[in-house]
Amino acid sequence: SHFLHHNRNVTASLSRMFGTKLLNLQPCIVIQRASMFLSLDNNVITFKEEGVWNYSTMLIREDLGLLVLGAREAVYALDINNISVAKSKVLWKVTEEKQKECTSKGKHPDIDCRNYVRMLHQMNGSVMYMCGTNAFSPTCDYMLKLEGKQEDGRGKCPFDPFQRSASVMADQDLYSASSLNFLGSEPVILRTSPISLRTVFKSSWLNEPNFVYMDVVPESEDSPEGDDDKVYMFFSENAVEYDFYNKLVVSRVARVCKGDMGGQRTLQRKWTSFLKARLDCSVPEPSLPYIIQDVFQVRHKKWRKSVFYAVFTSQSSTDRSSTVCAYDVTDISKVFSRGKFKTEVTVEMSDVKWVTYNGELPVPRPGACINNAARSSGIMQSLDIPDKTLQFIRDRPLMDDAVRPITGKPLLLKRGPLLTRLVVDHVTVSDRESYHVMFVGTENGYVQKAVNYDGEMHIIEEVKLFQNAEPIEVLRLHQNQVLVCFVQLYAGSASGVVQMPVSNCSRYSSCLDCVLARDPYCAWDVPAQRCSRLPTSADDGKSNLIQSLKDGDATRCPTIGF
Amino acid sequence: SHFLHHNRNVTASLSRMFGTKLLNLQPCIVIQRASMFLSLDNNVITFKEEGVWNYSTMLIREDLGLLVLGAREAVYALDINNISVAKSKVLWKVTEEKQKECTSKGKHPDIDCRNYVRMLHQMNGSVMYMCGTNAFSPTCDYMLKLEGKQEDGRGKCPFDPFQRSASVMADQDLYSASSLNFLGSEPVILRTSPISLRTVFKSSWLNEPNFVYMDVVPESEDSPEGDDDKVYMFFSENAVEYDFYNKLVVSRVARVCKGDMGGQRTLQRKWTSFLKARLDCSVPEPSLPYIIQDVFQVRHKKWRKSVFYAVFTSQSSTDRSSTVCAYDVTDISKVFSRGKFKTEVTVEMSDVKWVTYNGELPVPRPGACINNAARSSGIMQSLDIPDKTLQFIRDRPLMDDAVRPITGKPLLLKRGPLLTRLVVDHVTVSDRESYHVMFVGTENGYVQKAVNYDGEMHIIEEVKLFQNAEPIEVLRLHQNQVLVCFVQLYAGSASGVVQMPVSNCSRYSSCLDCVLARDPYCAWDVPAQRCSRLPTSADDGKSNLIQSLKDGDATRCPTIGF
Repeated sequence: SHFLHHNRNVTASLSRMFGTKLLNLQPCIVIQRASMFLSLDNNVITFKEEGVWNYSTMLIREDLGLLVLGAREAVYALDINNISVAKSKVLWKVTEEKQKECTSKGKHPDIDCRNYVRMLHQMNGSVMYMCGTNAFSPTCDYMLKLEGKQEDGRGKCPFDPFQRSASVMADQDLYSASSLNFLGSEPVILRTSPISLRTVFKSSWLNEPNFVYMDVVPESEDSPEGDDDKVYMFFSENAVEYDFYNKLVVSRVARVCKGDMGGQRTLQRKWTSFLKARLDCSVPEPSLPYIIQDVFQVRHKKWRKSVFYAVFTSQSSTDRSSTVCAYDVTDISKVFSRGKFKTEVTVEMSDVKWVTYNGELPVPRPGACINNAARSSGIMQSLDIPDKTLQFIRDRPLMDDAVRPITGKPLLLKRGPLLTRLVVDHVTVSDRESYHVMFVGTENGYVQKAVNYDGEMHIIEEVKLFQNAEPIEVLRLHQNQVLVCFVQLYAGSASGVVQMPVSNCSRYSSCLDCVLARDPYCAWDVPAQRCSRLPTSADDGKSNLIQSLKDGDATRCPTIGF
Repeated sequence: SHFLHHNRNVTASLSRMFGTKLLNLQPCIVIQRASMFLSLDNNVITFKEEGVWNYSTMLIREDLGLLVLGAREAVYALDINNISVAKSKVLWKVTEEKQKECTSKGKHPDIDCRNYVRMLHQMNGSVMYMCGTNAFSPTCDYMLKLEGKQEDGRGKCPFDPFQRSASVMADQDLYSASSLNFLGSEPVILRTSPISLRTVFKSSWLNEPNFVYMDVVPESEDSPEGDDDKVYMFFSENAVEYDFYNKLVVSRVARVCKGDMGGQRTLQRKWTSFLKARLDCSVPEPSLPYIIQDVFQVRHKKWRKSVFYAVFTSQSSTDRSSTVCAYDVTDISKVFSRGKFKTEVTVEMSDVKWVTYNGELPVPRPGACINNAARSSGIMQSLDIPDKTLQFIRDRPLMDDAVRPITGKPLLLKRGPLLTRLVVDHVTVSDRESYHVMFVGTENGYVQKAVNYDGEMHIIEEVKLFQNAEPIEVLRLHQNQVLVCFVQLYAGSASGVVQMPVSNCSRYSSCLDCVLARDPYCAWDVPAQRCSRLPTSADDGKSNLIQSLKDGDATRCPTIGF
C-alpha cells in the first residue's frame, strides 16, 4: 500500500478528490479525508553533508537555540530555527588503530568499524555528554560548544579586521590592546577582570598605536623588592617626543603591573602603572626609526634571563629592509624602574615639546608596582597611591631613555621582501651549549631559519611555505612532549596553514653538507654515516657526532662519503 | 632580491653550489652557505579549506593535542601532529542583520563586514575564549571542545552501531540501557553515578533485549506515600513466561527508583528496584505480540496525568502492520506497586515454567522504592532492605500483570510500510480543548500526522520527508519559546535531516478545506478569509474562527469562497 508519492504541485482541491478511506483499518481508526502532500520546496528544510551518514541522534538545546545532531563520526550544532545553517561541526573519527582492531575481529571496516554517535545528553551548563560506538569499542566524551553568550568584544578585538591588536590571558584575566570604536580611533589597553582598567584616552598615552604583542613576565617569582608581575606590550605609534616635518612612527614597549587596581580619585579605573619607552633597533646608517612588527619572548625559568626578540621593518615605503633585535627583559625593566621620565613643556606660547624631566619625583615612584617599600609605608594597593604620584604618571607615561637591544645593534638586517613575524626556539645541542634558532616569516610566503651565534644571526635555511607570495600572518612553534625531537613550525596566511618540522637533517647526505649546514638540530653521526636529528642515541659525549656550528669547520669529516 | 624560488628537485650538492653570500648584509650578519630548499611534498603539511580565508590566529593546546586555528568566520581544531586532520570546525558567521548594519556604514560587505576571528585564549579547563571582528562589531564568546577524555562507553553506548540502546540523564546521573560486550550478548541497564548500579546478568532480568526508550517520571513531586522518582524503560525481549514452539518476543516496560543504592549483601551494586511488566498493545485478531519500536512521554505538570505513547510493529515478517498504543503512567505504576509477581517453578523434573506467585510477599514489598512506610520501619535506603526482600526480587523481577493501553486497544493499526518512531505534541485549540497530535515516522521516509479524538486516532496528513524510501531513525519536536506557534518537527535518517513546521494552514485555500482538514493547528478565520495557524489574533471566543475537529462539520462555512 505505497499509496503516497511525492507531488510538488498539489492543491487542496486535488487532495479533496482523494477523500476516501485509503487504509485497511480496524474499527477504531477513522480516516476522514486524504492525506495532504506538502511541497518539499516550501516547508521542509534539509540538512545533509556529503559523505556523512546516519543522522540518528538528536538533542534539542533550547538554551543555545541549537539542534545538536549525532551522525556517523560527526556531531553538528544546527540552528534550531533553520537546520540548513550549521553553526558547528565536530568530527569524531575512529583512529586507524581502532579500526584495524575492529576489522581483525571480522567486522566490516566501513559499516561496523566507524564511530556512530549514539548518545547525546545535556549536562550542567553548556556541557554535553556524548557516546559513540567507536569501531566496536564504545567511548564517551564531553563536548562543549560556542556558548552563544555574545559578549561585547570592544577593546578586546578590533572592529576593523585589518587593524592589529594584541592580548594575553594571565590567570584567567584578559589583557587586551585594541580599539574601542568603529573608526579605530580610540585605542585602549584594557583589562576586563577582576577590576576593569584601561588607559587614559590621551595622545601622550597612546597616539594612533599599532599593537603587535603582549606577554606576561612573572617578576614576583624572584624579586627582593617584593615587586609585582608585569604585562609587557609592544606597539608602534606616532611619536610625541620628536620634531619632524611629518608624522613619525616609533616603536614602543610598555608595561603595567598585574596587581594594579586603578587609583582612588585620580586615575579611577585607569592604569596607575602604565609606563612606556621607545624601543630602539637602529641600523648604523641614517634612517627613520624602524617599525616593530612582531615579538617573541624566549622564556627562561629565571625571568631575568628571558629575552624578547622583535622584528622591525623600515618606515620608508621605498626602503625594503627589515631588522631583528633582541632585548633583555632586565634592560627593559631597568628603564621603567630607574630611568628618567619625559615631560611636556610649553615653548614660546603654544608649542609643546617633550623634554627630560629633571625635577624631583613624588614618592612612591610614579608607575611603580606596589612593592615592599610601598607596603611598609602603608600603600598596600594601587588605590592607596597618593594623588601626587598618580597625577605625575597620568601626565608623563613616557620614559626618557630608550630600551636598547642586547648587542647594541640589530642581530639581522635583511633587504628584500619584508619580514613579518617571528618565533624563536631554544635548542640545546650536542656540545651542551644552547642556541636560539629563529624562524622569521616574510611578506611573500617564506620562512627564514636563522641561528644566533654570539650575537650574530646566521640564516641557515629558507623555505617557501605558500605557493602564492602572500604574507605570513602568524607563526607558532610546538614541541611534542613525548617525541622531544619532534618540533613543528606552524604558519598561517590568508589562504591556508602549513606545518613543517623545524629541521630535516636527513636531507644532508654527506658529512660536509651536514656540518656546513651549521644547523643546531643536526650533527653527522659517524658510525651510522648519516646526518642525524639531535638528540640522538649516538650522542655519547659527541665522540661519534660531528658538528661545528660557530665555524662550519668540516675538517673532522671522514674522507669517505664525500 | 627575490633570490629564492620553489624547486622540488634540489639536492644538497646543488645547494652547495650556491654557497655564497646572497644578501646585502650588515657586518653582524654572516651567511655561511646558501639556503636549503625544502620539498613541499615531503615536509610541509598544509591545511586550507575551500572558501575559508585569513588563517591568522593560532592557539596551541598541548593538553588536547590541538592547534586551534582562527580564520574568517571559522575556528578549527587541528591535530597538532598533522594539521591536515581537522578534528572539528566551528562556524562563527556574522548575522545578515549585522552585515547590513556594517555595509550601511560604508564598509565592504565581503571584505570588512565579516567575522574575522582575531583572538583565541585558553581559559580554565578546556574552555577557550575567542573574539572576532563580527562585521565591525567586535564580539567575544566562549568555545568549548571535545575534551578528548575518551571515557569508557561500555554499557552506555552499544558496540554494534545497529544495536539499539536507550539512555536518560537525570540530575547529572546517566541511566543507560545497552550492552557490555563486543558480541552484544551482555545486556545491562546501568547507572554510573552517584553509585554505579546495574542489572543482574540473568535471563529472567534481561533476555536478549532491544532497548528503545527511557525517561524519568518525577513521582516524588506528588506522592502521599513519600515515594521516589522513577526511571522507566521500554524494550522488547525474548519472553520467558510463554510456551511457544519458537523464540517469542514481547514488549516490556521496566522501572527503577532514582534513590536506589543497591543492596548490602544481596544485590550489591545491583538494582534493588528493577521491576518489569509486559506491555500489551494487542489487535483484535489473533497474532503474535507486536514489538515495541519507540516511545514518547507526553509530560503533564502533574505526573499522574502523563501519558506514554508507543509504536509497535508486527513480529511476523510477512505481516506488514504497525500499531500505536497509549499508556497512563498511573496504570504502569499500579502494576508495579500493587500487582502480583511471576515466579519460576520446576515442572516434571527439568521443565521450568513461570506462573503467578500466590505466596506471601516479604516486607517491605520487593522492588518498592524507599517510601514513608519503609522509613518508619527504619529502612532509610536500599542498603537497609532485608535480604529476604532482595532475594525475592533478584529471582522474580517480572510482574504477573501486563500493562494495558488506555482504551484497552491500539489507537491506530496501520498496514503497509512499518512505523518506526513517534513524537506527540500537546495542542490547545481555539475551543479551549486540547488534543494530542502524533507524528509517526515510517520505514520509507514518510511522517504521518494523526490526532487523538476521544481515543480514536485520525491520520490527517502524510508527508514524504526523504526522497529515497529510507527509515526515519529519529524524530524530535521543538516549540520556539518566543514564537509560540512556531513548532517544528525534526526527522533524521541515514542520508540527512529535515525540519518542517508541524502545520501549514495557509495551504488550505477554502473554508471547506480548512475545516475538513481537522487539523488542530488550523482554523478558518472568517473576517480574514483564510485558514490561520492557531493561536491567532482573530481568536476572540471562536466567533470569528471555524473549526470542527471531531466531526469535520463544514456547514458553518460561509458560502462565498467555495
